Amino acid sequence: MHISELQTPALLVEQAALRHNLDTMSAALPGGRLRPHVKAHKCTSLARLQYANGHRGFTCATIREVETMAAVGLGEDLLLANEVLDTRRLGRLVEDGHRVTVAVDSAETIKAAAAGGIREVVIDVNVGLPRCGCPPESAGPLADLARRAGLVVRGVMGYEGHLMLVQPEAERREKTEQAMRRLLAASADVGGELISAGGTGTCTVNIWANEIQAGSYALMDTAYEQLGQPFQQALFVLGRVISVSAGWAVVDVGLKALSLDHGLPSIDGTEVWFCSDEHTTFRTDGVPQPAVGDLVRVRPAHVDPTVALHDTLHLVDGTQVLEQWPVDMRGW
Amino acid sequence: MHISELQTPALLVEQAALRHNLDTMSAALPGGRLRPHVKAHKCTSLARLQYANGHRGFTCATIREVETMAAVGLGEDLLLANEVLDTRRLGRLVEDGHRVTVAVDSAETIKAAAAGGIREVVIDVNVGLPRCGCPPESAGPLADLARRAGLVVRGVMGYEGHLMLVQPEAERREKTEQAMRRLLAASADVGGELISAGGTGTCTVNIWANEIQAGSYALMDTAYEQLGQPFQQALFVLGRVISVSAGWAVVDVGLKALSLDHGLPSIDGTEVWFCSDEHTTFRTDGVPQPAVGDLVRVRPAHVDPTVALHDTLHLVDGTQVLEQWPVDMRGW
Repeated sequence: MHISELQTPALLVEQAALRHNLDTMSAALPGGRLRPHVKAHKCTSLARLQYANGHRGFTCATIREVETMAAVGLGEDLLLANEVLDTRRLGRLVEDGHRVTVAVDSAETIKAAAAGGIREVVIDVNVGLPRCGCPPESAGPLADLARRAGLVVRGVMGYEGHLMLVQPEAERREKTEQAMRRLLAASADVGGELISAGGTGTCTVNIWANEIQAGSYALMDTAYEQLGQPFQQALFVLGRVISVSAGWAVVDVGLKALSLDHGLPSIDGTEVWFCSDEHTTFRTDGVPQPAVGDLVRVRPAHVDPTVALHDTLHLVDGTQVLEQWPVDMRGW
Repeated sequence: MHISELQTPALLVEQAALRHNLDTMSAALPGGRLRPHVKAHKCTSLARLQYANGHRGFTCATIREVETMAAVGLGEDLLLANEVLDTRRLGRLVEDGHRVTVAVDSAETIKAAAAGGIREVVIDVNVGLPRCGCPPESAGPLADLARRAGLVVRGVMGYEGHLMLVQPEAERREKTEQAMRRLLAASADVGGELISAGGTGTCTVNIWANEIQAGSYALMDTAYEQLGQPFQQALFVLGRVISVSAGWAVVDVGLKALSLDHGLPSIDGTEVWFCSDEHTTFRTDGVPQPAVGDLVRVRPAHVDPTVALHDTLHLVDGTQVLEQWPVDMRGW
């Protein structure tokens, strides 16, 4: 099928770029050194490629992601890197033989994990991002509490999300080291084998964690592209020019097809003015004039929430659609 | 069911506020004076209430919205207020007896409408927002072209979207008049009975269009709330506090559950610091301390793309869930 037959807007994944990204990352962080984060693509077909590349453990952000990964046979070692208070759905997965580990950072989340049938946890440590995670000095006592509740404590995790886009790289490296020193201190108190951290922005500089939770590297976006990492933009939203005026044109890709939380999307060779619910308006002065009906690739600034707006990923080789993959881990 | 039994994040619609909004708008713009825009809620259960309030015609932004409205028996008079180039799915609806009118603003979209089996169109006129719509002086010639292609031209539409949030109201009124003067000039050239325009922001000041395409009024958001209109916030995203630290706490409502294109969401009584994929971090200094497990209502800044992230609207009366409505018009 040619991409012109797709109902626009449509999510495209360029196969060669995806392959490059997956293989580049697997060479840098082979096997268990990478715990791919599925929140970035929410697609078990793509997770299967990561598994085939040697990564048997995955990171999830939602209960739905854990459930769906388990349902398709990718439940060997799933880490829900987030706090949850009702763990009953996860407990049922454990009962069915899937390995599910949950992040905890408080007495309440430890109690919830034990109550719902979870058997394994990691202590989530705040390494500088004001979000979830306990202070490093509380990690040991929380691990003791978890063990007293009958839970196995597999180690620690800490997400240096505030450092992902720090430039230049030397500064990102230095700040990542400071953040990871906090995590290593907690790890010394907690014990266990896991020191889980990182993301696409720090995957090349975080040498302290023993597994990296990167996800965006597979599809990439314009925010991460600025870092000059060895990954290529693989995700695009395909649209059609539906209106051309004197000075601007409109493509049928809007807020409901791409996320603006990291800023406006990009269109090669021109400048995006603004996005509305179903439209992106771009400048046509000084660029080759588009015609009504032209296909346009829009590059989102943030891949994760953009993917979550679609029900299908179209794997393409240029203008040819090779496969259609359901975005099957949406929702909660 | 009590709201504490819902998997968070969950979309809540407060019944009394919804009822107030629907009735207030129907009193101000009865019957055909309002053509409710379904893009704001994407929910046929809610559209049925608008129909029951006397509004038989609806505005849609996507082919999927038109198809779904027709499928549930709300296809008496559906206006797709957007340009489309492949109208075959719409043509099939026309063939099945539904009334579908499409916006056109170019020779290409007129040709596409006729080719796909569309019989009725409106000429979309640019009234100042640089998006779709022809210049007012082109509207007459385009109407002639459409009629020569065998289409019935029902009139004109023009969306003054750039004026929705202009303050104070006197300035919004004055600028709306200027925009509508352009539309009335086009209407004089085009003919037909429809002069369709407007939105929630201008519904009380646009006295020139003969039907208003408002949608957000039903659920409301914090962006429109600033205007001081007689509508109440009816939409909330329910979350749970999953982590409490010294100075901040985290609720499990993030970018994938609310849209940030109009800015950060609000939480009554405190200040939101930032949103991540699955989290909103808010200040706890100087406010009553939240506890892990507390339910929190997050108020989105923009209703339309927030609704599109969810598959269910939970109609509530305070803490009681009354009904669960599918968000059945998502996608394209």
